[in-house]
Amino acid sequence: MSEIGTLVLLRHGESEWNAKNLFTGWVDVDLTEKGLAEAGRGGALLAEHGLLPDVVHTSVQKRAIRTAELALHAAGRHWIPVRRSWRLNERHYGALQGKNKAETLAQYGEEQFMLWRRSYDVPPPPIDPGDEFSQTGDPRYADLPSELAPLTECLKDVGVRMLPYWYDAIVPDLRAGKTVLVAAHGNSLRALVKHLDGISDEDIAGLNIPTGMPLRYDLDADLKPVASSYLDPEAAAEAAAAVAAQGRK
Amino acid sequence: MSEIGTLVLLRHGESEWNAKNLFTGWVDVDLTEKGLAEAGRGGALLAEHGLLPDVVHTSVQKRAIRTAELALHAAGRHWIPVRRSWRLNERHYGALQGKNKAETLAQYGEEQFMLWRRSYDVPPPPIDPGDEFSQTGDPRYADLPSELAPLTECLKDVGVRMLPYWYDAIVPDLRAGKTVLVAAHGNSLRALVKHLDGISDEDIAGLNIPTGMPLRYDLDADLKPVASSYLDPEAAAEAAAAVAAQGRK
Repeated sequence: MSEIGTLVLLRHGESEWNAKNLFTGWVDVDLTEKGLAEAGRGGALLAEHGLLPDVVHTSVQKRAIRTAELALHAAGRHWIPVRRSWRLNERHYGALQGKNKAETLAQYGEEQFMLWRRSYDVPPPPIDPGDEFSQTGDPRYADLPSELAPLTECLKDVGVRMLPYWYDAIVPDLRAGKTVLVAAHGNSLRALVKHLDGISDEDIAGLNIPTGMPLRYDLDADLKPVASSYLDPEAAAEAAAAVAAQGRK
Repeated sequence: MSEIGTLVLLRHGESEWNAKNLFTGWVDVDLTEKGLAEAGRGGALLAEHGLLPDVVHTSVQKRAIRTAELALHAAGRHWIPVRRSWRLNERHYGALQGKNKAETLAQYGEEQFMLWRRSYDVPPPPIDPGDEFSQTGDPRYADLPSELAPLTECLKDVGVRMLPYWYDAIVPDLRAGKTVLVAAHGNSLRALVKHLDGISDEDIAGLNIPTGMPLRYDLDADLKPVASSYLDPEAAAEAAAAVAAQGRK
């Protein structure tokens, strides 16, 4: 029986639309210069802590893919196997994709805004398949049956479509004793942390995952967390506070 | 029976040691700024020609990995599956790794120099496992049985270790009808082109593959080339001439 490997979660660095304060979801925006630097710093932290990934899992979105690439180059682990899945994608933000967060807050008010951003089971209105920010015609989803391709998602929906990938793709790597890097998004990682830490549907609203900060989980034989911590806890706490304040500028 | 997919070969852009005129082999140097730009231009050419990879195969060396990453970002195909193998690595240059090409030419003379660089079956002397430029202790080769880990290679050796990967990993993707990008090195690609085009042991000496220039192969049902061409033939011819002149500056 092999020892369970170590899990490392990494949220992508600042994206072009984070910087512009727009809801992004499945829109495939790139990292900003700041985001590129965050990714490199995340990788340097992995190297400093001797936490060297044996395999990486990413979403199929550019900002997570670039984050993984740059972090792994910085850690000298660019050569490890790469796995990708749409199941690690950011939450689909429905009709809000491409909308300004501050304007949405002003238009719909605090209550509705927070319900869409942080409620567990209230999705935004679905996006029109003809909308310029829908994923209609995107070749990376061409093989996805229509009943799997979301037009909007709440966090609960993200958990439902993410967990099969956790069980079927990530857990086997952990059971093989590997150090596994998951480079993904605010909400796909919140859904995973909710599952791992057994966070309630209510309390998950208060959890914010900072960008570019490796989060380490040590797991027992039943894949339950024995310990978890950010590699740079002080910087992570500051960054999480900044995420929580988003949309208010 | 599905149609055979399209094969696209891409040699990495200029590396730090290409620029310094050093023998590189399995030493894991990065791309130069010029090399990064070459990779992006290679990807832009793929997009311009509508030659969009469905899967990418790379070596486990940084210069080929970065080339694949940057080319795929430029072509909007960063999200495709990635496969890697040491079998696509550059030729191991033995004791010449880390040596200056012009100094080696001056020290050993034209005949010996060309024998090491271009003969089919004469490898350079093996590298000392304690040499600073050997791959002793490199974690990416830790699981490789010692009888597979080379201490030097001639082009024939490269073909012997590369072809199993061609047959077992790349051909199945082609048989599935995919457009397959292989991002690799001067000599692993020369070995593959020798095989595909049936080039003789003598004539392969005259074949130079330019950096950053996508080379397209259309294949028949028996994986024999029906047609092959560089996407930018004029630039490719100029670049190949530059490769041939290497070591003389």
